[in-house]
Amino acid sequence: MAEEPLIEHQRDLQEMLNQIQFLMERQKLVSQLLKKQKGSNELLQTLLEKQQNTELQQYLRRLHPADIAYVLESLPMAKREEVWRSVDKNSYGEILLELSDAVRERIIPFIQNDDIAQIARKLDSDEIADLFPDLPSDIANDLMDSLQQEERQQVHSALSFPDGSVGALMDFEMITVKEDNSLGDVIDILRKRGEMPSQSNMLFVVGVNKELIGGLEINELLINDSKLLVCDVISQGIPTFHTNDEAKEAAQAFERYDLISAPVINAHNHLVGCLHIDAVVDFINESSQREILSKSGLSEEEDLFAPVLQSGKNRWPWLGLNLVTAFIASRVIGIFEETIVHIVALATLMPIVASVGGNTGNQTIALIIRGLTLNQISSANFYRLLFKELRISILNGVIWGAVVGVFAFVFYQQWQLALVMFAAMVINLIIASLAGVFIPLILKGMGRDPVMGGSVILTAITDSMGFFIFLGLASLFLVSKI
Amino acid sequence: MAEEPLIEHQRDLQEMLNQIQFLMERQKLVSQLLKKQKGSNELLQTLLEKQQNTELQQYLRRLHPADIAYVLESLPMAKREEVWRSVDKNSYGEILLELSDAVRERIIPFIQNDDIAQIARKLDSDEIADLFPDLPSDIANDLMDSLQQEERQQVHSALSFPDGSVGALMDFEMITVKEDNSLGDVIDILRKRGEMPSQSNMLFVVGVNKELIGGLEINELLINDSKLLVCDVISQGIPTFHTNDEAKEAAQAFERYDLISAPVINAHNHLVGCLHIDAVVDFINESSQREILSKSGLSEEEDLFAPVLQSGKNRWPWLGLNLVTAFIASRVIGIFEETIVHIVALATLMPIVASVGGNTGNQTIALIIRGLTLNQISSANFYRLLFKELRISILNGVIWGAVVGVFAFVFYQQWQLALVMFAAMVINLIIASLAGVFIPLILKGMGRDPVMGGSVILTAITDSMGFFIFLGLASLFLVSKI
Repeated sequence: MAEEPLIEHQRDLQEMLNQIQFLMERQKLVSQLLKKQKGSNELLQTLLEKQQNTELQQYLRRLHPADIAYVLESLPMAKREEVWRSVDKNSYGEILLELSDAVRERIIPFIQNDDIAQIARKLDSDEIADLFPDLPSDIANDLMDSLQQEERQQVHSALSFPDGSVGALMDFEMITVKEDNSLGDVIDILRKRGEMPSQSNMLFVVGVNKELIGGLEINELLINDSKLLVCDVISQGIPTFHTNDEAKEAAQAFERYDLISAPVINAHNHLVGCLHIDAVVDFINESSQREILSKSGLSEEEDLFAPVLQSGKNRWPWLGLNLVTAFIASRVIGIFEETIVHIVALATLMPIVASVGGNTGNQTIALIIRGLTLNQISSANFYRLLFKELRISILNGVIWGAVVGVFAFVFYQQWQLALVMFAAMVINLIIASLAGVFIPLILKGMGRDPVMGGSVILTAITDSMGFFIFLGLASLFLVSKI
Repeated sequence: MAEEPLIEHQRDLQEMLNQIQFLMERQKLVSQLLKKQKGSNELLQTLLEKQQNTELQQYLRRLHPADIAYVLESLPMAKREEVWRSVDKNSYGEILLELSDAVRERIIPFIQNDDIAQIARKLDSDEIADLFPDLPSDIANDLMDSLQQEERQQVHSALSFPDGSVGALMDFEMITVKEDNSLGDVIDILRKRGEMPSQSNMLFVVGVNKELIGGLEINELLINDSKLLVCDVISQGIPTFHTNDEAKEAAQAFERYDLISAPVINAHNHLVGCLHIDAVVDFINESSQREILSKSGLSEEEDLFAPVLQSGKNRWPWLGLNLVTAFIASRVIGIFEETIVHIVALATLMPIVASVGGNTGNQTIALIIRGLTLNQISSANFYRLLFKELRISILNGVIWGAVVGVFAFVFYQQWQLALVMFAAMVINLIIASLAGVFIPLILKGMGRDPVMGGSVILTAITDSMGFFIFLGLASLFLVSKI
């Protein structure tokens, strides 16, 4: 077990953060006071500062690397550097791993060349490969040079797996046994190693060419006679992944079958690594965070304390895209300016049609994307789904169209206007449901992420069509009558 | 290990679904053909149908309960009942557990009273408690009656923990040992049980009153001499949760510290249960799904094949809420109808101001909610964050305001109009960033979920204010000049 005190509760996490901030503030204050006191000698000053630093260091030394990463993420830039310098260098590697990409990028410049060997020694090959792409090339080269031959090969092979593949997520380290080992032999092997991977509930059984034969649950070692052979208690048909399987699929399988670890094989059926639940949990969390952020068009994690210009730029592609759709909607209105001059109420009412269309369409899109994620949508049930969404949109269109029709009538006392409003609502909701079903399917068919662009495209359609239908109907049926 | 073939890949999952649908279609066709053939005798017909059913049963019998749950979720109502009837009754309980709440609700009516004892026998107390609230009261009572005294107490206590607490997520089953047991004793205990919880990497060490003393990693049993005592290798200070801790916090701790299992204690420090990574993974997945759906105002999971009226109703609260905000925005425009009659271009341009405001505000809200979830926002850094978002909004307002100003000038050749457009954009983006920072904080302060209502409130503000500022500025500076 780690000797650090582990923090189960958010209030304790936040208290810890407050204490560190307090320590740092006090330190700053003392140095300032000392500087003002001209009489004090330099030696005393340096001594006092050293003592203060030691206090922060001692505090940080007791924390788990994941908690230090949390502290770094929650502090503004200037303080991050101070904390980083006070951290035990042995934890550098683990802390870097725990940081979000955005903050890691900003911590890496603090790394000095002589820290690199330290970092490399503490990390496994797959972890080094995780850091590698973020490192500046000179540091990355130094890091590579400090590795053993075998490790270096592993890092290279980990780097060759694409992001989001099982290969990029797996560990290289694992314990393998042979079918004809006795359980006693296996226990001896484990004792010689002394330490066991605590995330693993399974050893892997391989043949002469490292081909995977099955798994040996560690529990079997405890409850069986040590004279039995591995092949007597082997688990066959355990869930096995390929290095180039999608991590998303592996995560779903871990969830469905409650897995703790699973073997990873290459194209030749050779065992090359092990996928552990902790990596899967990290992957699930990152994916869902990414999905939530990408719905607001934030393509990557943003450091809360990034400089203004950088944060601003992070939001530009989305704003630009939305501006284009807003311009298009605006030009659609432009077509009907004549009509609006005649009946200004149209300008007042038109955003309602567009907005309700956008909202219903986004509900449909959310459900379809969820169905796609869970693989519940197939050619066999597609039409049933489509007709269901269509019927819901007609039902909702009639009900809510009536509501907005009444609203229009109350304010303008024209039943023709109310009728146009009602008809526009029904038609726009139908369009919204069609768009909500087809957009994610088309995006997926094109190999794109339906979460990312789906809702922008949908809103562009429901806005433009909402304005077009409402103002178009009004031009046809209202203008001549006034 | 389970003997079912486990399905690692989505394509295999979908193929399985297709095969089942094919089997069922063929079955239907054969029965129809038989009915048309008037000559055939009833006995032959029954026999053939039986044979067909057996085929489906055999297919389903080979599947893991989680996969049968997937099949049920992906089929329309009529076929669900047929599949349910063909499933091995021994799997009923596990299948029910794996179903989403929405689909489970619709499967439960298929359960017959004599199936209940079967279901109860196969499930642990905490699992029964999960199902309990969804069962109709007569079935629930029968189920309770079929339980042993101890189990019934456990179900009652599990039911008493609120949703989203650690108590509601934990298992009651676990293996406890004493400090003065030798490791050999512990191994004997395990051998007598024969079976071990495969999700557990730890046994718990308790004192005379069941108070928790520490954990004993199963690995320690393998690598240490069996004559050592438990107290020699005990892990102290392991992460421990209270029954009424929030499950969300436990999930974060599991992620931070890569836990596999953790003890759960009650207010008297007595060990009452164990939290396992599989329950945590399910919780994480459900929470993130709920967060994604609730962003589109879908308060609960929706069965893809729910009847139209039910699905329609599920979407009403959100539509109603959005309609209210659209009405308000519409009334804001109504104030300025006079102005619009004079300058119809305003009607064409006003949606741009509102839409860009909504988009930027939603980006800010997404980042603030993420910061809140990760506990990165405290009173110490709040002002820094607020000023950062403000400065970003001014930066973006100036840049994108200039773009829309140019757009307005190109189409209407009035530099005053372009200037009003520019000013309205800057002001609305500032308002959007303030709203984006404060709304989630205020909602959280009121003890509400900032994800659920945040973006509606924000859009209401940015729409109404966007219209108000743009049309108001135009009324002040443009109307008199024309």
